[in-house]
Amino acid sequence: MAETNQAHEPVRFETHPDRYVHWNLTFEGPVAKLAMDVKEDKGLRPGYPLKLNSYDLGVDIELADALQRIRFEHPEVKTLVVTSAKDRIFCSGANIYMLGSSTHAFKVNFCKFTNETRLYLEEMSAESGIPSLCAVNGTASGGGYELAIACDEIVLADDGSTAVSFPEAPLLAVLPGTGGLTRLVDKRKIRRDLADAFSTVAEGVRGKRAVEWGLVDEAPPKAKFDEAVKKRTEGLLAKSKRRAGKAMKLAPLGDRQFVAIELDPKTRVATLTMKAPNDKAPASVDDLAKLGSSAWCVQAWRELDDTLLDLRFNQPNIGVVAIKTTGNAENVLAWDAFLAKNREDGLVRECVLLMKRVLKRLDLTAKSFFALAEPGSCFAGSLLELALAADRLYMKDDPDAEVTVATSPMNAGVLPMANGLSRLGTRFLADPSRVNRVLEQGVMGTPDAVKAGLVTFAPDDIDWDDEIRIAFEERASMSPDAMTGMEASLRFAGPETMETKIFGRLSAWQNWIFQRPNAVGEKGALTLYGKPERPEFNWSRT
Amino acid sequence: MAETNQAHEPVRFETHPDRYVHWNLTFEGPVAKLAMDVKEDKGLRPGYPLKLNSYDLGVDIELADALQRIRFEHPEVKTLVVTSAKDRIFCSGANIYMLGSSTHAFKVNFCKFTNETRLYLEEMSAESGIPSLCAVNGTASGGGYELAIACDEIVLADDGSTAVSFPEAPLLAVLPGTGGLTRLVDKRKIRRDLADAFSTVAEGVRGKRAVEWGLVDEAPPKAKFDEAVKKRTEGLLAKSKRRAGKAMKLAPLGDRQFVAIELDPKTRVATLTMKAPNDKAPASVDDLAKLGSSAWCVQAWRELDDTLLDLRFNQPNIGVVAIKTTGNAENVLAWDAFLAKNREDGLVRECVLLMKRVLKRLDLTAKSFFALAEPGSCFAGSLLELALAADRLYMKDDPDAEVTVATSPMNAGVLPMANGLSRLGTRFLADPSRVNRVLEQGVMGTPDAVKAGLVTFAPDDIDWDDEIRIAFEERASMSPDAMTGMEASLRFAGPETMETKIFGRLSAWQNWIFQRPNAVGEKGALTLYGKPERPEFNWSRT
Repeated sequence: MAETNQAHEPVRFETHPDRYVHWNLTFEGPVAKLAMDVKEDKGLRPGYPLKLNSYDLGVDIELADALQRIRFEHPEVKTLVVTSAKDRIFCSGANIYMLGSSTHAFKVNFCKFTNETRLYLEEMSAESGIPSLCAVNGTASGGGYELAIACDEIVLADDGSTAVSFPEAPLLAVLPGTGGLTRLVDKRKIRRDLADAFSTVAEGVRGKRAVEWGLVDEAPPKAKFDEAVKKRTEGLLAKSKRRAGKAMKLAPLGDRQFVAIELDPKTRVATLTMKAPNDKAPASVDDLAKLGSSAWCVQAWRELDDTLLDLRFNQPNIGVVAIKTTGNAENVLAWDAFLAKNREDGLVRECVLLMKRVLKRLDLTAKSFFALAEPGSCFAGSLLELALAADRLYMKDDPDAEVTVATSPMNAGVLPMANGLSRLGTRFLADPSRVNRVLEQGVMGTPDAVKAGLVTFAPDDIDWDDEIRIAFEERASMSPDAMTGMEASLRFAGPETMETKIFGRLSAWQNWIFQRPNAVGEKGALTLYGKPERPEFNWSRT
Repeated sequence: MAETNQAHEPVRFETHPDRYVHWNLTFEGPVAKLAMDVKEDKGLRPGYPLKLNSYDLGVDIELADALQRIRFEHPEVKTLVVTSAKDRIFCSGANIYMLGSSTHAFKVNFCKFTNETRLYLEEMSAESGIPSLCAVNGTASGGGYELAIACDEIVLADDGSTAVSFPEAPLLAVLPGTGGLTRLVDKRKIRRDLADAFSTVAEGVRGKRAVEWGLVDEAPPKAKFDEAVKKRTEGLLAKSKRRAGKAMKLAPLGDRQFVAIELDPKTRVATLTMKAPNDKAPASVDDLAKLGSSAWCVQAWRELDDTLLDLRFNQPNIGVVAIKTTGNAENVLAWDAFLAKNREDGLVRECVLLMKRVLKRLDLTAKSFFALAEPGSCFAGSLLELALAADRLYMKDDPDAEVTVATSPMNAGVLPMANGLSRLGTRFLADPSRVNRVLEQGVMGTPDAVKAGLVTFAPDDIDWDDEIRIAFEERASMSPDAMTGMEASLRFAGPETMETKIFGRLSAWQNWIFQRPNAVGEKGALTLYGKPERPEFNWSRT
């Protein structure tokens, strides 16, 4: 089960409920139900049967798709129930043979994606008013229990043997990779000593004790399970603050309209160009609904999301991404104004939350991003967020061909980062008054944008080509690992949240452990899982 | 320069200004001055000349000692100036050949110790009223600039070529290991794009631009440097809030009076026993001063500090530490009451801050700690903090021999963790009202302590021996790496601070990078530093 680097088919992230293999998505009035029913022989890659509702990336891609569609396509939904369609097993977490046979880079990106999906469950509750109940109708171990604690409430069917557990550390010498440890102590606020005991007992904790320790909210006997689930579902329905809005079907992305990517494998640089809307914003929310998912605020951002995932999983050797924008800035500002004005509408709200999630995906992508503002570029409002999310902004200082950037209400906190602040707020931690000044300024030419603190470097016409070329060459020549650690440290100044803890602290430790011989060496626990040999550890504590 | 595991002399952490090799510590009225003057041939271990004021652990042990002594032995000091005794070089950071030839575990522990020392500089400013000025009279690179940004203010002598720099990522494929990236964006609140540019330019940033970017506070020409340092020193003196208090000489620790450690290399378990004071507290602060550093609140905690450092550096294979206490709980409570009552006094304040720092050292030590409360134990007040810092507390439930624990004012927030909360506050995040209830309860037998939420497991007389034995065996059998990552994730629930970011986020990323072939492999940048070959990187971004 050695780490393989063999070429795989590229991962594709688009799917549709008609094609789901592993989840049953059903609706009963305001209640959506997602039942996990993983098909053993339908793993994304060959070589690991997905036994016992264990999952791989393919299973999680369907889950992420389902959550997105519930939000856009089902405005009537006010509560989600997550459960298993299998008997006696809820979910046994990420498939261990899949992990054991994956490259380090794949493992890390896999965990990042599943973490994002769990956070989408929580965002759906907090921002869209769709709280979730986990109906744990069988053993939930590892990633299975992590899925449960990403829901608002957990009911466990107590048949005397069913347990929730984190067997990762004792059995595999790794950590629960999907935010589990952080959610134990920071979300469910379980006492750290009990969390410690729980996370080191491979067989987990059952019924009554699971309730006492705060691991689940209720553990009725199996015969009363359905009733308890029903009651809690009704409770969540009553609490739901879902806003009214029209449905929007998410059509297949089709040919890319708004996001183009050019790859240069030799220089390890990609150029991502995002286009402004072709037209002014719709006149009303009804008109937006009529446009359907071809609307710029959905199509363009879904394309960007798909492009970022493609870069992460299918283009590992790309180190630096140039971010460019083109098109009519006035159109962006018109769309931004429309979205800001109609934020209380349920559908518009989902559009804005989609943009927010995609921008967070950019913040968390382990590539260096340099934004390039040149004549014809269009870093305005929501597209300016791309430049603010980038590690640097180069803006041409050319008196003969003016370059501008512009702010809009979408830069004022509607699209917060994982730290809870706007990108402008994070940028100007030293002097928060600059945020409002920049917002008031609106459109800025290069000298004003420099003065405002938006620009990293502003080479003139003569220097531009050389300076940009050298900047990309230099960046692409640096150790990818050092860049990842550096960017993870510099991108999220200011307050920390459960989300930044999960991606900053927990993921970093997990990545470290995923490299250690005690886990992935020849005699490591992850390598030897399922084999008769016992792992051998280097006992040095570090 | 491959990683060696050869047996070294154990590291000793006690020193004294009379024996300093690398620092000149001088006093001029209320100003203490620490001038770095590293002796090339006096490294802690052979094999790496400490050129250009580069440092190893031995240099940092002296720095930590100096800071401690300024606080205890020099109540007249109100400001610290850190500078270099060498010409044209302030400090070039951690010695790279030392890092390249160290084991992973040593590198990680070395960085942890230097991080603690930098935080002590900041604590000295915030809590003791001794702000610090860094007089950068020559190039400050890597750890040299990190030392500078741990000070409150930085003056750079601008001779046209002197720079501050973080060459770690571009030259060595690692991160600045002593909190540098976090302090750039979170302490000095430098814009993230400028921090990004700064951290990737090996040659660094000079004079005027360093001021513009916020990297230093002032960069006068060399001829006006002394004057600028003098002016800023006077400014800091005027701001100092140092409290009056008696001096206390820190005598050599000598034979251990209060902390005993027993090592069992076979089971990889250590037993650390801390004793209560032998007598009641002194009647007055004057009496405390007369006791000198043999006073329990200093001697016992300095012994604990030394023991923890010994465990970290000299006992790498110890995985689990049993924490026991013995002695008269009433004496602890009397000392605690004395310290709490006299907290406004300068000397008492330093004693309490020492206890705080040592407890933080425990929180951050990568060993599993299980506290054992048995008949005769003494987990009261400040010693109860040991149990609250531990990963678990086992308390014997024996009706024939009562076991008690007790709270005191020292549990009420005087000894905060790195997250800014008390250990009780962190424990009871789910229900903060429990903190006050526990504080009011005072002395508790086992059933009450269980009810209060202080106890992880309370085996009775019959089960105790077996249960404890099995708990230690099981813990010691688990992967040291998984335990380190797990404990780092569970110990610090609640708010994050710059300190938790440094130890949680930045250190975890650095540890990850310190394992990666791009840094430490045969062709890694750290391995090849100073050699003619160029490093070869695996370009996969992770």
